[in-house]
Amino acid sequence: MIVELVSVGTELLLGDILNTNTQYLSKQLADVGVDVYHAVTVGDNDKRLKEQLLESLQRSDMVITTGGLGSTNDDITKRIAIEIAGGESVEDENSRENIRDYFRNEKAMEANRIVFTFPKGSQILPNGNGTAPGVIIPIGNKRLVLLPGPPHEMQPMFEHYLKPLLSGETHATTVSRVLKLAVIGEWEMANRVDHLLRSSVNPTIAPYAKKEGAVLRITARAKSVEEAEQLIEPVEKQLFAEFGDLIYSKDETTREQLLVETLIARSERIATAESITGGSVAAKITDVPGASNVIHESFVVYSDGAKSKYLVVSRETLRNHTAVSEEACVEMLWGLQARTNAALCIVTTGYAGPEGEDVGKVYIGVSYRGEVEVYEKRYRGTRERIRQRTVNHAIDYANLMMKKWNA
Amino acid sequence: MIVELVSVGTELLLGDILNTNTQYLSKQLADVGVDVYHAVTVGDNDKRLKEQLLESLQRSDMVITTGGLGSTNDDITKRIAIEIAGGESVEDENSRENIRDYFRNEKAMEANRIVFTFPKGSQILPNGNGTAPGVIIPIGNKRLVLLPGPPHEMQPMFEHYLKPLLSGETHATTVSRVLKLAVIGEWEMANRVDHLLRSSVNPTIAPYAKKEGAVLRITARAKSVEEAEQLIEPVEKQLFAEFGDLIYSKDETTREQLLVETLIARSERIATAESITGGSVAAKITDVPGASNVIHESFVVYSDGAKSKYLVVSRETLRNHTAVSEEACVEMLWGLQARTNAALCIVTTGYAGPEGEDVGKVYIGVSYRGEVEVYEKRYRGTRERIRQRTVNHAIDYANLMMKKWNA
Repeated sequence: MIVELVSVGTELLLGDILNTNTQYLSKQLADVGVDVYHAVTVGDNDKRLKEQLLESLQRSDMVITTGGLGSTNDDITKRIAIEIAGGESVEDENSRENIRDYFRNEKAMEANRIVFTFPKGSQILPNGNGTAPGVIIPIGNKRLVLLPGPPHEMQPMFEHYLKPLLSGETHATTVSRVLKLAVIGEWEMANRVDHLLRSSVNPTIAPYAKKEGAVLRITARAKSVEEAEQLIEPVEKQLFAEFGDLIYSKDETTREQLLVETLIARSERIATAESITGGSVAAKITDVPGASNVIHESFVVYSDGAKSKYLVVSRETLRNHTAVSEEACVEMLWGLQARTNAALCIVTTGYAGPEGEDVGKVYIGVSYRGEVEVYEKRYRGTRERIRQRTVNHAIDYANLMMKKWNA
Repeated sequence: MIVELVSVGTELLLGDILNTNTQYLSKQLADVGVDVYHAVTVGDNDKRLKEQLLESLQRSDMVITTGGLGSTNDDITKRIAIEIAGGESVEDENSRENIRDYFRNEKAMEANRIVFTFPKGSQILPNGNGTAPGVIIPIGNKRLVLLPGPPHEMQPMFEHYLKPLLSGETHATTVSRVLKLAVIGEWEMANRVDHLLRSSVNPTIAPYAKKEGAVLRITARAKSVEEAEQLIEPVEKQLFAEFGDLIYSKDETTREQLLVETLIARSERIATAESITGGSVAAKITDVPGASNVIHESFVVYSDGAKSKYLVVSRETLRNHTAVSEEACVEMLWGLQARTNAALCIVTTGYAGPEGEDVGKVYIGVSYRGEVEVYEKRYRGTRERIRQRTVNHAIDYANLMMKKWNA
C-alpha cells in the first residue's frame, strides 16, 4: 500500500513551526509496512490544496492530511475535501455534542459548524484531545484521511484508529526495545557487537549515541506484537550475554532513577563533592522525585582551598599531585565520607576547559560501604560534553558498585 | 518570486530523521521576501525525483533541493539534475582539489567523481563544511539549486551565497534582535507591552517563552540591513523604557555569563546553598568558562539537618516556620555568608513536588555586600519546571542586585 502525506498550513511554509508530523507519520507508517513516496506541504490556499490532493490521490492509495481542521478562515482542509468527495455533506450529532463543552452558546456553535460537518459517507475519528475530529473519506477506490494539526491531537488519533486499521490490512507491525548502556561509549559498544549489528535483519539492532549515553535499539517486524516480541527475545539475550551489567535499563528508567531507587530500597544515603561537575551530579539526583529520602547534603568544592576546607584534602597532596589526581580524588572521598557518613559517596575532579593542556582529564571517585574505586578518564569534546559525560559516568559507576554488593 | 523546496532522501520518508531544512529555508526565504507555495519530500528514486523536479520547475521560479549530493548509490540528485539540464556535464578542477584532502588516493577520487561533476554552465557553491559543493543550474528562465543535506553544511552555504543573491533580487532583507528578560513571566511581559505588540507592523515585536525565560524578538524588514537596524532602534528604546534593567541581554549573553563576568570584573566571589535546586544553580554558574575565578565552594543542603549542620539554621526556626519559610531562608543566607565570606550568596528552599500541598512555594535569598533580599515565589508546573524557574530567577535576582550597586 502506498500512502502520501500532505501537511496543510501557511505557517509551515513561513518556517514559523517545525513540521514534526511528517516524521512521526512516516515512522509509524513504515512500522506497519506501508510505503511513503511523497510528503508535501501546501499553504492555506484553496486552489493549490485542491490540486495537490487530486494529484496525490491519483498516485497513492491513501492520502493523509494534517492541519486545517479548525473553524477559522485559514482552516480550509475539510471544505476542500467535501468538494473533492462530491460536494454532499452531513452534520454529525455526536461530534456536535462533543464540542458543545468548548463553545457554550448556540451562536458560537453555528460559527464552528464546519467542525462537525463531514463529507457524506465518511468515517469520523473522534478527537479526545481537542475540538476537531478526524475523518476517513472514501474517494473511488482510494481513501482521503484528514487528521488535526496539533501533534498531541494527531498522534493519539493515528495510534488509536489508523494504525490498527492499516496494520490489519498490511498484516505487519513493528516493536522496538531500547537498551541503555552504562559507562561505555557508542563506538566501543558498536564495535563489541559489530558481528550482530551487521548480520541483524529482523530484528535489526541499531546503536545510537544520545545525550544520556550509548543506546541499542532492537526493532522487530512481524504479523503481530506477540510474534515481534518473540523475535526480540533471543537477540536481547545475546546482547545481555555480551554487555551484562552494563545494560542498566531496558525501559524508560534513567540512571539517576535507578540510583535513587536502589538507595531507597536499602535505606541508604548518598553525598557528593563535585569539582569539575560543579553541582551537576547532585542536581541530576535531585531531579528524581523522592530524592530527599537519600540525599541530605553535598558539596561543590571548585577551588583547592574548598577541597581542603571541607574534605581535608592535604596541602601536600595538592602541591605534589595537583587537585586533578588519583591521590586528591581518594582524599576527597575519605573526607566526604567522614563528614557525611553517607553509604555512597561520589566525587569528581578534572579539567573541563575550554583552554589548558590537560582538558578532558577527569577523575571520578566512588565509595560504597567503605570500598573505594577511582576511575581516570580522558574525555574529548566541548566543556559541556566533558562535564556531561563525567556526570553520566559518575552515576553509572555508583550504580555498578551498588549492583556488585547485591550479588 | 516563487521558490519551491524539494527535500531528497528515503531516510526522511522512513521517519529516521526530522526534516529541519524545510523550516530553516522557509524562514530564511520569507525573510528575503520570497514566496514558498510547496515543500515536497521525495525518496532516492530516479523516476519520482525527476518527475517532481520537472513539476516543481514548471510552477515555480526557483527550485531548491537539499540532500543527495554525496557519492553513494543513494545520492541521485546531481545525476538527475544533469539529465534535466540537458545531459552535458563538466568536471570542476577547484572542487576536485578541495575534496582531495578527504579522499587521499586517486582510486577513491575516481569513485567520488560525481561530487566534482556539474551540469555545464552552472554556478558552483563551495562547501566550507563538507565534501559536496552546491550548485545553481539555469533551466530556461528558471533556476534549479542543489544544496547538501546536512544542516551544518547547508545553512552556511545558503547564508553565504543564496541569501545575498535572493535579497539582491527582491530588494528585501530582515533583521531580528532578541531581548532577554529577567524574572518576569511571558504573560506579564506581553501584557505590559500589549499596545506595542498589537500596533507593531514593521518592525514586529513578538513575545516568546523559552526554557531560559521570557524573550522579546524585534524583527524589521527593509531594503538593507542598515535600514532595518534604523527601524529597530526606536522600538528597542521604547522596550528599554518599559522594562529597563529587567532586560539583561540583547545578544547571545546568558544570565549566568553576565553574573560570572560581573563578579570577575569586581574581583568578587559567589557561594550557593541549595535545597530545592539541589546544586543546579552552582552547576549553571560553573557551566561558564572562567567560573573557577568566582566560585570556590558551595553547598547542597537538602535536608533540615544539613541546613543546621552547615548553615547554622536554628532548630526553632525549622520547627516554628519549617525549612520553606522566609525565616529559614534568611538564616541560610547569614550562615552561608559567614562560612564562605563570599560577596554574593544565593540560597534556595521550596517544594518541587510532584506531590504535597505547597508544591511550587519557593524562597530565593540573595545577599550582596551584606545586603539581604528574600523573594517568595509561587510557581506552577512540573517538578522540572519549578526547579528550572527557581534557578533562572535566583541568578536574575543576583544580577539585578549587583547592578543596583553599580549605579
